[in-house]
Amino acid sequence: MSQGITRDSMRGKPVDIEPSRLTVTKTTSPKELPPSKSLIFGETFSDHMLRIPWTDATGWGAPSIVPFSTINLCPGTTMLHYAQSLFEGMKAYRHADDTVTLFRPEMNMKRMNTSAQRLLLPTFSSSALIECIKALIAVDRRWIPKEPGHSLYIRPTLIATNSTLAIAPPKEALLFVIACPVGPYYPQGFKPVPLYGTTEYTRAAPKGIGGYKLAANYGPCTLAQKCAANWGYTQNLWLHGPEHWLTEAGVMNLFVVIKDSGGVTELITPPLNGMILPGVTRDSVLALARNHVSGVKRLGGFPDVIKVSERPINMGEIIQSSKEGRLVELFGTGTAAIITPVERIGYNGGDVMIPTGEDGMGPVSRPLWTELVGIQMGAVKSDWNHVVSK
Amino acid sequence: MSQGITRDSMRGKPVDIEPSRLTVTKTTSPKELPPSKSLIFGETFSDHMLRIPWTDATGWGAPSIVPFSTINLCPGTTMLHYAQSLFEGMKAYRHADDTVTLFRPEMNMKRMNTSAQRLLLPTFSSSALIECIKALIAVDRRWIPKEPGHSLYIRPTLIATNSTLAIAPPKEALLFVIACPVGPYYPQGFKPVPLYGTTEYTRAAPKGIGGYKLAANYGPCTLAQKCAANWGYTQNLWLHGPEHWLTEAGVMNLFVVIKDSGGVTELITPPLNGMILPGVTRDSVLALARNHVSGVKRLGGFPDVIKVSERPINMGEIIQSSKEGRLVELFGTGTAAIITPVERIGYNGGDVMIPTGEDGMGPVSRPLWTELVGIQMGAVKSDWNHVVSK
Repeated sequence: MSQGITRDSMRGKPVDIEPSRLTVTKTTSPKELPPSKSLIFGETFSDHMLRIPWTDATGWGAPSIVPFSTINLCPGTTMLHYAQSLFEGMKAYRHADDTVTLFRPEMNMKRMNTSAQRLLLPTFSSSALIECIKALIAVDRRWIPKEPGHSLYIRPTLIATNSTLAIAPPKEALLFVIACPVGPYYPQGFKPVPLYGTTEYTRAAPKGIGGYKLAANYGPCTLAQKCAANWGYTQNLWLHGPEHWLTEAGVMNLFVVIKDSGGVTELITPPLNGMILPGVTRDSVLALARNHVSGVKRLGGFPDVIKVSERPINMGEIIQSSKEGRLVELFGTGTAAIITPVERIGYNGGDVMIPTGEDGMGPVSRPLWTELVGIQMGAVKSDWNHVVSK
Repeated sequence: MSQGITRDSMRGKPVDIEPSRLTVTKTTSPKELPPSKSLIFGETFSDHMLRIPWTDATGWGAPSIVPFSTINLCPGTTMLHYAQSLFEGMKAYRHADDTVTLFRPEMNMKRMNTSAQRLLLPTFSSSALIECIKALIAVDRRWIPKEPGHSLYIRPTLIATNSTLAIAPPKEALLFVIACPVGPYYPQGFKPVPLYGTTEYTRAAPKGIGGYKLAANYGPCTLAQKCAANWGYTQNLWLHGPEHWLTEAGVMNLFVVIKDSGGVTELITPPLNGMILPGVTRDSVLALARNHVSGVKRLGGFPDVIKVSERPINMGEIIQSSKEGRLVELFGTGTAAIITPVERIGYNGGDVMIPTGEDGMGPVSRPLWTELVGIQMGAVKSDWNHVVSK
């Protein structure tokens, strides 16, 4: 029995999330859809939300889709004081033929369960929650923008809700899912960003929580991001330890492309050593690149020969490869922006320049982006797409 | 201008917390006081709470004391997703002559402001918030238990309340203060606790947030505490790095007493290196010991000659001093329990035994505890007591 799936003591069965118990209460005052051009990430919410309560004694309660409404917490609620909160980010896309899909939702569900275990919050059946989320998307289908590059951002969240100031495993929790229509992250096309190499603050540490999508990893990051912004950088690059290992860029995973002295291209991303979030886009980029290498599916325009590495890389290696003209590109990956090219890294009082292509993307990131967006928008067939409705 | 103290743009003045704007709305249905014996830490709340809203545009709003009631948050509220939350813990004591005091509240306010700066939440005037808290305590005066060792635990909390999924400095916040009557942490007298030396998880890292009282430091700790409990230990001891430096015990600061080869007693606590919470009780223990050493105020029963050190100490030194019979005692300090003696440390598959006195306390912790409790309960005069009402 996995942690948190409690048993109904009268009947001896685990009480998991049960989609058949889902109830739907539709809003009587649906909002007007905002113009897609006006959308700002995370500020517009759809008409409904999904709520699933949990208690230690009774397990998961009946899921309900209800009008978007406030969450009312006793001021002593444990999550207000101790950050017993975790979340996921995923997107529903509307294809040209009006099919609606989620991109690899089982990856988000798996990570959400891993996060829940880390915080001693309840776990659940991934497929059951996906089914409930599909029902929410169906109810709020009109909120999925039609324009290319647009999507409905889905935010599953799990918080501890029992009221006590004792620091202990949660006895009550609430899983809720909200949705935001969002536009493309770079409406004017790709613009490579400058990153500030942060050595003044630490995002994560070995054996810490950096590899989990917990609320606790995000709020404390804003100070480093603000410092980077004050110095004219779009985001910060988390450099770990005295060796200045590259870990994450803001809240994105990070890829570096270098050539070795023999001219062979290497696509490098830091390994999942507990300090790196196991990003869905990170995993997808690695899978696409490895499928190219193995011949399962060649990517048009991708380097013929490429080595795919999950290994540590530090600023010393970046600078060395830059000096020797072997640095090809550097980019971030994440659900929000998919791929974000980087043009320079503020480091040691100067800037390490990163090559970027004419349109902002490089020779490795461009084919990856094309394939990923092609899959997500339905132009490329893939079993990564999970059909919500046709 | 300190971060977060905004200016009224029309008048050019910073808009700080202003006690003169405080309003009081008393409950019409006061709760029955529970028997002091039945109190469980953090589960019983008084009749009222203090609320002070803040916005980036207008600064701090008018403080209000209102009936204890839910906090209603939009599901997109940033603190639900990103742990932009911090808190303090302090106690109001009722003396034998019915005087009510707070213990060094300016220390909590200073730390709360430091925490706020770390999360880019608004800062405020310490004396202004203390004045509002005093008003809350006065309104809920009947909730301060009369019995020795009892107190009213005060929990100031500051959360980001604007509704956006963007990760950015908060634009709206709510400071609230709630109060819980609490009994003595060890109603049956001191019982030394066993600690499990945690090397599987990290609480804090250099340049991280471990030195701030942020919500994000607490929820993630419950897993290590649960592991310790599963193995029969009351709390866990956070051992940092491959050298197994002692840092904190559960959510307490830590003190070690050893004798050097010449027989001189040393009172040691890990230094404030960014991984250690600057505890008020920690600071008070250090101050009492240093006043004893300097002769400002001798402590009855304390070792005549004692060295007071803020320095790193690791498990190697604990084991070595234990083997050589030089380990005198080890104890945790914190607002909740004041002083918690430790009887053993689970480490490397065995237990490192720690000497404890007959009644549970050792020769160094006992005089410290007597003095601290004497001050807090009013038997010992001290300018650490801040009179709330007589």
